[in-house]
Amino acid sequence: MTYCVAAKLNAGLVFLSDSRTNAGLDHISTFRKMIVYEKAGDRFMVLLSAGNLSISQSVREILQVEHLKDRDGGEPITIWNAKSMFDAARVLGSAIRRVYERDAEALKNTDVDFNVAMVFGGQIRGEGMRLFQMYSAGNFIEATEETPYFQVGESKYGKPVLDRVLTPETPLAEAAKCVLVSMDSTMKSNLSVGLPLDLVVYEADSFKSDKIVCIDQDNPYYKMMHSNWGQKLRQVFDSIEDPVWDDAHTDTPLKMPAARHAPLKKINTPEQKLI
Amino acid sequence: MTYCVAAKLNAGLVFLSDSRTNAGLDHISTFRKMIVYEKAGDRFMVLLSAGNLSISQSVREILQVEHLKDRDGGEPITIWNAKSMFDAARVLGSAIRRVYERDAEALKNTDVDFNVAMVFGGQIRGEGMRLFQMYSAGNFIEATEETPYFQVGESKYGKPVLDRVLTPETPLAEAAKCVLVSMDSTMKSNLSVGLPLDLVVYEADSFKSDKIVCIDQDNPYYKMMHSNWGQKLRQVFDSIEDPVWDDAHTDTPLKMPAARHAPLKKINTPEQKLI
Repeated sequence: MTYCVAAKLNAGLVFLSDSRTNAGLDHISTFRKMIVYEKAGDRFMVLLSAGNLSISQSVREILQVEHLKDRDGGEPITIWNAKSMFDAARVLGSAIRRVYERDAEALKNTDVDFNVAMVFGGQIRGEGMRLFQMYSAGNFIEATEETPYFQVGESKYGKPVLDRVLTPETPLAEAAKCVLVSMDSTMKSNLSVGLPLDLVVYEADSFKSDKIVCIDQDNPYYKMMHSNWGQKLRQVFDSIEDPVWDDAHTDTPLKMPAARHAPLKKINTPEQKLI
Repeated sequence: MTYCVAAKLNAGLVFLSDSRTNAGLDHISTFRKMIVYEKAGDRFMVLLSAGNLSISQSVREILQVEHLKDRDGGEPITIWNAKSMFDAARVLGSAIRRVYERDAEALKNTDVDFNVAMVFGGQIRGEGMRLFQMYSAGNFIEATEETPYFQVGESKYGKPVLDRVLTPETPLAEAAKCVLVSMDSTMKSNLSVGLPLDLVVYEADSFKSDKIVCIDQDNPYYKMMHSNWGQKLRQVFDSIEDPVWDDAHTDTPLKMPAARHAPLKKINTPEQKLI
């Protein structure tokens, strides 16, 4: 399994991926799932991938040479000369479809789905930052103000903290912390997501980034965040009062004198029919 | 969708279920997913169900009359005379198989999986408390000291807090708080899990329970927990320092001077081949 997450803030973009792949629990390996494409001063793009590793590796290989016909008869469009991230995403979609044409039938013959999910984002000089989620069919959706992040892979464990924290106004460093907490919750609950992590932070309109880091269990920040989050979460949990059934001595009884809903019926005898 | 969770502690059992069902996002209804079977002083059992509602309702109906042959030629075994929770779970498994025989083929003809998942737990006089998770095939597994809880339905969003808090030593009231927080995180991230909730708390060796409550948005405890958890989680998040890239002024730099892992390679030109 894999967990990748990316967020688009007003201040920039944040990308995070784990590096564990598995084909069954007894075949676990480390593969990096992030690639950075940078032409400093002109474009900065990051690709995160989940799903079948043979497919995503092929897509990444083909993406380097993939091109789309230009409608106006100009030079073919590649990720290196595309004038917009939308066009670059179209090139990526085309690379996915090329791998589909090559592999899908043979995969189907061995009952393997053509399954790949990618997040692709960045900025090309002349337009704002953009962030896309790519599907197996090569189609894609774009992040908006209302939904400023995308996840691929094992996404559910780490979603609550994203929903609680991320908005377009979130500062970059805080967003980086947020995706790291999201990853931490995921690794706590799913063994098949694991260290090291790759993190990239991109500042709007910089068209390059040096904030790229590989995080393993010795990373001081990750260690601090991991132990603090776990401890403090537990403190918060402890600080919330336990439910009290008798409402005589509390403002927050669990049982209310007059509930609006019918109480749950008990079945008390074999003869009594179901509610 | 549905979310049900149950935990077996040394002090007793806790059961919690939501009440939303959906067949597509435009067909959402409220159905209670918990049933309590109680013969005071003799046995106390709770059944939680997720999956196809027509199947789980049929199973619950049939369970009232289902019986297994007694090997020793005695009276047929029902959930009302079973001498152990293991036998009661076998009766439940048999009811699931009966519905399978009746419905599975017709469901398959319309491309509907025979999909049901249940949690069944309680105590019968003469043995300790037991907690089972039931599968579509009528087979089941039992909770142990290492894994004191089961979830069915939309389980992932609410799993991290269970993993962080629940052990067999957890007091009953704290376990009730824990499953409510788990439910709260689930409802935050999945619209198809919704109020009202049904909560049952059972004290070991009591063979009955009056701690049964239906919780809706007006419930004082739930309201307090919901707003406190959200607020304090946010405070904890804010209290953890943001990552700092320059390691000159902090003990917890994000970027380490000497990382053990190869840095993520950037691809800088169209010609450069993939790493």
